[in-house]
Amino acid sequence: MLIILNPAATTEQIESLNHTVRNMGFLPHVIAGTDRTAIAVVGDTKKLDESYITRLDGVDSTQPTSQPYKLVSRDVKPQTTVVDLGTARVGDGSLCVIAGPCSVETRKQVLATARHVKKCGAHALRGGAFKPRTSPYEFQGLREQALELLAEARAETGLPIVTEVKDTETLPLVARYADVLQIGARNMQNYSLLERVGDLRLPVMLKRGLSSTLKEWLMAAEYIVARGNNNVILCERGIRTFETETRNTLDLGIIPLLRERTHLPVIVDPSHGTGYASGVTPLARAAAAVGVDGVMVEVHPEPAKALSDGPQALTFSMFETMMRDMRRISGLMGQAI
Amino acid sequence: MLIILNPAATTEQIESLNHTVRNMGFLPHVIAGTDRTAIAVVGDTKKLDESYITRLDGVDSTQPTSQPYKLVSRDVKPQTTVVDLGTARVGDGSLCVIAGPCSVETRKQVLATARHVKKCGAHALRGGAFKPRTSPYEFQGLREQALELLAEARAETGLPIVTEVKDTETLPLVARYADVLQIGARNMQNYSLLERVGDLRLPVMLKRGLSSTLKEWLMAAEYIVARGNNNVILCERGIRTFETETRNTLDLGIIPLLRERTHLPVIVDPSHGTGYASGVTPLARAAAAVGVDGVMVEVHPEPAKALSDGPQALTFSMFETMMRDMRRISGLMGQAI
Amino acid sequence: MLIILNPAATTEQIESLNHTVRNMGFLPHVIAGTDRTAIAVVGDTKKLDESYITRLDGVDSTQPTSQPYKLVSRDVKPQTTVVDLGTARVGDGSLCVIAGPCSVETRKQVLATARHVKKCGAHALRGGAFKPRTSPYEFQGLREQALELLAEARAETGLPIVTEVKDTETLPLVARYADVLQIGARNMQNYSLLERVGDLRLPVMLKRGLSSTLKEWLMAAEYIVARGNNNVILCERGIRTFETETRNTLDLGIIPLLRERTHLPVIVDPSHGTGYASGVTPLARAAAAVGVDGVMVEVHPEPAKALSDGPQALTFSMFETMMRDMRRISGLMGQAI
Amino acid sequence: MLIILNPAATTEQIESLNHTVRNMGFLPHVIAGTDRTAIAVVGDTKKLDESYITRLDGVDSTQPTSQPYKLVSRDVKPQTTVVDLGTARVGDGSLCVIAGPCSVETRKQVLATARHVKKCGAHALRGGAFKPRTSPYEFQGLREQALELLAEARAETGLPIVTEVKDTETLPLVARYADVLQIGARNMQNYSLLERVGDLRLPVMLKRGLSSTLKEWLMAAEYIVARGNNNVILCERGIRTFETETRNTLDLGIIPLLRERTHLPVIVDPSHGTGYASGVTPLARAAAAVGVDGVMVEVHPEPAKALSDGPQALTFSMFETMMRDMRRISGLMGQAI
Repeated sequence: MLIILNPAATTEQIESLNHTVRNMGFLPHVIAGTDRTAIAVVGDTKKLDESYITRLDGVDSTQPTSQPYKLVSRDVKPQTTVVDLGTARVGDGSLCVIAGPCSVETRKQVLATARHVKKCGAHALRGGAFKPRTSPYEFQGLREQALELLAEARAETGLPIVTEVKDTETLPLVARYADVLQIGARNMQNYSLLERVGDLRLPVMLKRGLSSTLKEWLMAAEYIVARGNNNVILCERGIRTFETETRNTLDLGIIPLLRERTHLPVIVDPSHGTGYASGVTPLARAAAAVGVDGVMVEVHPEPAKALSDGPQALTFSMFETMMRDMRRISGLMGQAI
Repeated sequence: MLIILNPAATTEQIESLNHTVRNMGFLPHVIAGTDRTAIAVVGDTKKLDESYITRLDGVDSTQPTSQPYKLVSRDVKPQTTVVDLGTARVGDGSLCVIAGPCSVETRKQVLATARHVKKCGAHALRGGAFKPRTSPYEFQGLREQALELLAEARAETGLPIVTEVKDTETLPLVARYADVLQIGARNMQNYSLLERVGDLRLPVMLKRGLSSTLKEWLMAAEYIVARGNNNVILCERGIRTFETETRNTLDLGIIPLLRERTHLPVIVDPSHGTGYASGVTPLARAAAAVGVDGVMVEVHPEPAKALSDGPQALTFSMFETMMRDMRRISGLMGQAI
Repeated sequence: MLIILNPAATTEQIESLNHTVRNMGFLPHVIAGTDRTAIAVVGDTKKLDESYITRLDGVDSTQPTSQPYKLVSRDVKPQTTVVDLGTARVGDGSLCVIAGPCSVETRKQVLATARHVKKCGAHALRGGAFKPRTSPYEFQGLREQALELLAEARAETGLPIVTEVKDTETLPLVARYADVLQIGARNMQNYSLLERVGDLRLPVMLKRGLSSTLKEWLMAAEYIVARGNNNVILCERGIRTFETETRNTLDLGIIPLLRERTHLPVIVDPSHGTGYASGVTPLARAAAAVGVDGVMVEVHPEPAKALSDGPQALTFSMFETMMRDMRRISGLMGQAI
Repeated sequence: MLIILNPAATTEQIESLNHTVRNMGFLPHVIAGTDRTAIAVVGDTKKLDESYITRLDGVDSTQPTSQPYKLVSRDVKPQTTVVDLGTARVGDGSLCVIAGPCSVETRKQVLATARHVKKCGAHALRGGAFKPRTSPYEFQGLREQALELLAEARAETGLPIVTEVKDTETLPLVARYADVLQIGARNMQNYSLLERVGDLRLPVMLKRGLSSTLKEWLMAAEYIVARGNNNVILCERGIRTFETETRNTLDLGIIPLLRERTHLPVIVDPSHGTGYASGVTPLARAAAAVGVDGVMVEVHPEPAKALSDGPQALTFSMFETMMRDMRRISGLMGQAI
């Protein structure tokens, strides 16, 4: 259930309402909108006496919520959430471009890439420090050294850093460096990790699991928001299907539905979504044309020598072309870039 | 194997080469390009003596073909095939828009829709006369009466007609009316039907099967082209995956790869690909932004009253908006529309 | 809706009821059970006046049918349908074993295989005459010559013949030879073919489509039964999933559900279901242990030289082992074999 | 690469070989078989000089390993690994039955269930204490209280305890109580958790991920074994496919292949694999008939009142029937039970 407050409701009234809801055995979550404030009441609200609630001070009306996800639902907050990355914002109507190498490999590689993507107009730098890999014998990332190199690249270019956190043990370390904590597809339902990033206030980018439904994805986001961290960005990166010619099947058809269902901002990763470099720019254009808040792509100075995901990395020159296309599509969609 | 001919090769030389190839136990297919002509040799060509072939009159060189599909491969014909619909062309660098109702239901419905889509700039009219339906108790189409109504709509608007042929029995009838024979997803591997439409010279639109790989799809097209009908258009319409919130999962990520692999023109059907009307225009934009030769969408005067597929049909006003978007994206992609 | 008749209802009463139902704009299908007879009424029966029906002569009661499939539903006929193959029966509580080569290749091959499987205790012989193949350049079967060889094998061994019919054009020919018409996975929704085999009274084995749901499969069977052919056997042969180590994913988990939903007999094909010979016998045992009416497997004198599907064919000695296992499991399940 | 040792190789020679391998920049893993001992050499062994290795003391020969998984491969250890649960063993040729409630809910529930499954012949008790749930608002388990109740049930019945560990934080606590640590499907690629359970010597049951390939599953097991914990049991529990009538699609077709590829013991969970109670016993029979080391099922005194997964729980009487069937199938398969 959602309690819609009077525009004139006071802080005291809100606190008193929270207190009442808790006393009745439910969890209240205050959701501040630009026009109105609401309180999402979580629990088995069928037992709740609606008419009692509507008579309380500060309450305008109540509204049922039909979906199992409450706090991330567009029902409870009509405006898209804006996630602030410092020098960039995701969800404010602009098209945010995040680019960088799959893995941080060398100082030279990450600085050269950061400078190039900055010059071309990217808004944030991605780079893997801790890499979850299918095989225990594969390159697992440069770890803290990679985080330091990313910080150096940020210091020089001003680009905020998006990097993956793969477990709760390394979360405090990664959180010291990252501007956005990426939760990878394999960890989308790692609920302990979701709860820990939910306890922080750092932005989180939640990638869709390989075989996760829209509902499961939003429920995973709910885990984070339910702990008080509203700064969640959803990232569609392709799902697993019978088709193996492409690495994954990028599910752009879900995007308009996703935007109807949730107020969280949405970005698309066409690099993992396709798995082949010549498909990345066309699908980045497609994502922008569907209507999203951003795209994230992998860029490498020498894809053939990359330690991970080389076949899907854009060269510097391919990224330049992609940015030119992004600017043209964003113009058409009425989005700043 | 592909035999590349001299630019100066004569008709007699080509005939003689065909004869030689047949005598050696293989099937020759002449593929005329704008710059050069080639002969695709089908069969177990490992046994073929290459050096003998290259010494024959009119031959420039030979080239192995790695894929199981030969005639539809981009290897054997670098230029995209142009399929001529009379008043429109698919594959010539323009963006072709095909629109109309899922099923032809009434004279009023089909004429009103035809007039509207024509006015908005569509290039062809779609409409189902024979409908393959999951249940034997559902509406199966108005059959010949529908074909007559489509012909009437064509006579008035000049729009060529795209309509589905569901079996070999009704093929002669449908072929008398249709400008493009649509093969539906369920029939993609109905090889007897593919062979019969391969014997005609009418354009064929081959929809991708619900769970068909790229390779199976191209092999199905090969069945048609191998009978001599080169006028094949491929139509991506979504695949079946674990995600059931959308009717199908539109696989736009396959498109750039498809265009590298085949010279056949490619269109996208975002109506079946998404299954919900509010997703159609965004995905039509996405398809155009990936780079395709056309899009096909369902339009109905009153979607709520449609006898089939109402939830995914665009209203007249939604189609008008879509066409405005198509024009803007096609401009950006450098495509006439 | 289902009209349940009095045990004492006469033929005249049944005819009169059919007439009444038709006059009301619905289609009646008489379903004769061992204990009672019922009439399934197909159409939008919400408009039907139940109380009027129950007052008619010979009627005991009416019963709503919740599923979109009517005639194949276990609701309308509690006993499993028994399909008679002449010398064998499917659905009578026994375990029927159908075995033979994927394709009929030579007289020697088919006769040797028929003799061997007969000697080991098989109840029917399978063998492909018309082969739908992914590529137009692959072996398409020996056609009528294959049918003649199968007939010769039947004459010698007494085994009824199961062979695929791939289109309506060759149906009359195939029907002259076959004891069971197999509809392949690719043709499961080839409705014109379903209707034509529905017009015959020959047993039909309907394989599940590669990506067909349980409901779609039963609706396809409904197409056949709705034309009056009740002799339909369902064959689970694996579905397409993300896992490519096996050719298909054999869906044994659906079998108990399928048996609750339909009265049609069910068999399993572990050859296509796994695609590798060492997996066939274990999965044949599993199928028998789940509880089915039969299994169908591919057997070849020399799998390495087979023209199609060699990797999944059992050798003669492997089939002998399989039959020993089948006898032991059928004993445990209380099934004759 | 695998270094096969002489039967007479001494401990000193093995230590010296390990030392040499490490000095060359590779990781050695000693694999003790009943007949012979081998050392798996992990790293890019293309650079390794084979002839040098074969000349070292104690070495018989070397053997390349073709699969990306080394230590779990059947290549390196022909005998199935036996995992000792104290009072039961998995992988020794017997059929192990693990049964119990999805979640531990009350003292009465868990004790009654433990007594019943013990009486019927089960070898181990399953029960969830920490439950990863799709929704943050669902019942998440009784946590430590549940572990204590499981310990009480073990004390009374002697049944070893199988319970899920969902994160590294609660691992020390769960490991104090559990006889087998279950890693759930959602955590199959939670590599940090795999590494931590790899550091212990407690048996681990690794469930297959919802959309994990056979290779990914074995690579996940490799993460555990590579840390020195060889006590790994694989559990097939169904994969996610397009079919939604069943909760998952139980992939029994992969089992024979899995057993060829790995020496780790394999069990099957037909409760999650089907999701409906009437399907559990038939699929447990099927699993046993394919040939596995055990089955794990959910049993509840009152399924309709279960806090999780009620629809798939067996009643006490259904479990009794299942055990009778298990005994008969295991007899047929020559397995002790």
